[in-house]
Amino acid sequence: MAFPRDTTLADVGEFGLITEMTKHFAQGEQVLVGPGDDAALLRVKQGHVVVSTDLLVEGRHFRRDWAEASHIGHRAAGQNLADIAAMGGVAHSMTLGLAVPSDLPAEWAVDFAEGFASECSLVGASVVGGDVTGADQIVISVTAIGAVAQAPVLRSGAEPGDVLALCGRQGWAAAGLAILKRGFRSPRVLVDAYRRPQPPYAAGPAAAAAGASALIDVSDGLLAEARHIAEASEVSIDVHTSALTIPDELNAVASATGADPLAFVLGGGEDHSLLAAFPPDVELPEGFTVIGTIGEPGGEPVTVDGEVYEGPAGWTHF
Amino acid sequence: MAFPRDTTLADVGEFGLITEMTKHFAQGEQVLVGPGDDAALLRVKQGHVVVSTDLLVEGRHFRRDWAEASHIGHRAAGQNLADIAAMGGVAHSMTLGLAVPSDLPAEWAVDFAEGFASECSLVGASVVGGDVTGADQIVISVTAIGAVAQAPVLRSGAEPGDVLALCGRQGWAAAGLAILKRGFRSPRVLVDAYRRPQPPYAAGPAAAAAGASALIDVSDGLLAEARHIAEASEVSIDVHTSALTIPDELNAVASATGADPLAFVLGGGEDHSLLAAFPPDVELPEGFTVIGTIGEPGGEPVTVDGEVYEGPAGWTHF
Repeated sequence: MAFPRDTTLADVGEFGLITEMTKHFAQGEQVLVGPGDDAALLRVKQGHVVVSTDLLVEGRHFRRDWAEASHIGHRAAGQNLADIAAMGGVAHSMTLGLAVPSDLPAEWAVDFAEGFASECSLVGASVVGGDVTGADQIVISVTAIGAVAQAPVLRSGAEPGDVLALCGRQGWAAAGLAILKRGFRSPRVLVDAYRRPQPPYAAGPAAAAAGASALIDVSDGLLAEARHIAEASEVSIDVHTSALTIPDELNAVASATGADPLAFVLGGGEDHSLLAAFPPDVELPEGFTVIGTIGEPGGEPVTVDGEVYEGPAGWTHF
Repeated sequence: MAFPRDTTLADVGEFGLITEMTKHFAQGEQVLVGPGDDAALLRVKQGHVVVSTDLLVEGRHFRRDWAEASHIGHRAAGQNLADIAAMGGVAHSMTLGLAVPSDLPAEWAVDFAEGFASECSLVGASVVGGDVTGADQIVISVTAIGAVAQAPVLRSGAEPGDVLALCGRQGWAAAGLAILKRGFRSPRVLVDAYRRPQPPYAAGPAAAAAGASALIDVSDGLLAEARHIAEASEVSIDVHTSALTIPDELNAVASATGADPLAFVLGGGEDHSLLAAFPPDVELPEGFTVIGTIGEPGGEPVTVDGEVYEGPAGWTHF
């Protein structure tokens, strides 16, 4: 390991930490100036960039006793890579801001950086710069920069008559979190889904290429994101629960905790699955399943099997 | 005002807050998709982008009782705009991450956004996206994206024989902070310099156009930044105190607090003045003053009047 186990950030200092973290950040060919100057310089061949910023706060978005530092690194990167995928694009460059208590083990930050860089490498993105500073609580800030191969797919393009389709795990991370909150560690597949989501990055550009009319990543909950599409597109959306896949482990957790398994799938976020609308004649890209229909606006923007859903619809930030 | 005085973020919610903040964010012609989708889409005509990220943490980089929300917005933007200027560039787009306690007055966040956008408008930059979430402590994360008109000016290009030159106020913000720490509010010009720095943004591109060999913005302290240039360029730097301008107010504060006025100028950061090296035959752009010389490496990287400086050299992050 880079630092002895009991070394804190106060011991190694800002620049000692940055040196160790940066060792994990391989630089792609687009990076003309990487970490270490006032700013990074990136070559942009495509005539545009797609940019997204997200924050993760300790105790709110993650707990150190529930996931290893490297997992939190994977999640922090994945959440932002998924935002670029949700435009139909691919991230090529990332910046990382890390506000951390001075008594944090230095090794935690280095393991975090390793997981962060590892997740970025899944799509070929480089960590090109960032900032490290002290704080009472860990706050992670990530900016992802990427490109789209054609016009970006917005939230606002869905039309009545389109189909609603989902790609990726949905509800697994929420069930994993429910398990951890009760002090358990299994079923492992769900806990791991929470600790280290597996967003279907390639499905974003694939949806764009296939002609998706709207696209969003599910970070706050399936129904919450469906509502974002419905409101931005001025349509209504009906989700068909018979089309939703619920793995056995999720049913088991729901049964053990007295929860409705559908509540995990409809209300759960943080899997960063991709939710899309496609015109009815489009052949769906691999991995997408039709889970609902897009209708005319008026009345409830999002319904479940034709009815208003009374369960928890998503995550509240305050 | 957008919200009644006693309205908190918990009352208005994430989306209510974002709606009010976004009203202050005018979008430039480079913005093809602005705030409100998974990511922003920016047109890039120059074939490259310059990117920088910085964090500001309440209690560490600012205090709400020492500066108004709008001032803190100006500072948060300015710190990042100055990073792009320090590459010889101009920022065109910004993202803003805001982690805030749920009991924070909503009006604070809106006033912050107004100051942030106002500072961005000084260089024509648009706030194109961001994130808002809850936290125990305010943490502000800013990413600035810009462009350079020619090759960027790095920290690493200074050569022995070059001159060291400074543009902008230096030490004023540190003196202002010292005043606030002692519970005073005047001299007002120094307190205001701390609350709302005035980085010389245009001097960055001007230095690049004039042929600067190295460029950095002074955020951590004049000698600390000189050391960054010396180490990256593998040169030594001697700062000449006789060339440093010390305003009367700063001398008065030093006298009243028993401090050395030079300590503010040499060790103070947060004015975001620009420190540059120029080849000796270059005519300095307006606003730059020669304050030292660049020499061969070996021995101490940075000296003051030929001697090792024993005072505080800069800001420590942990």
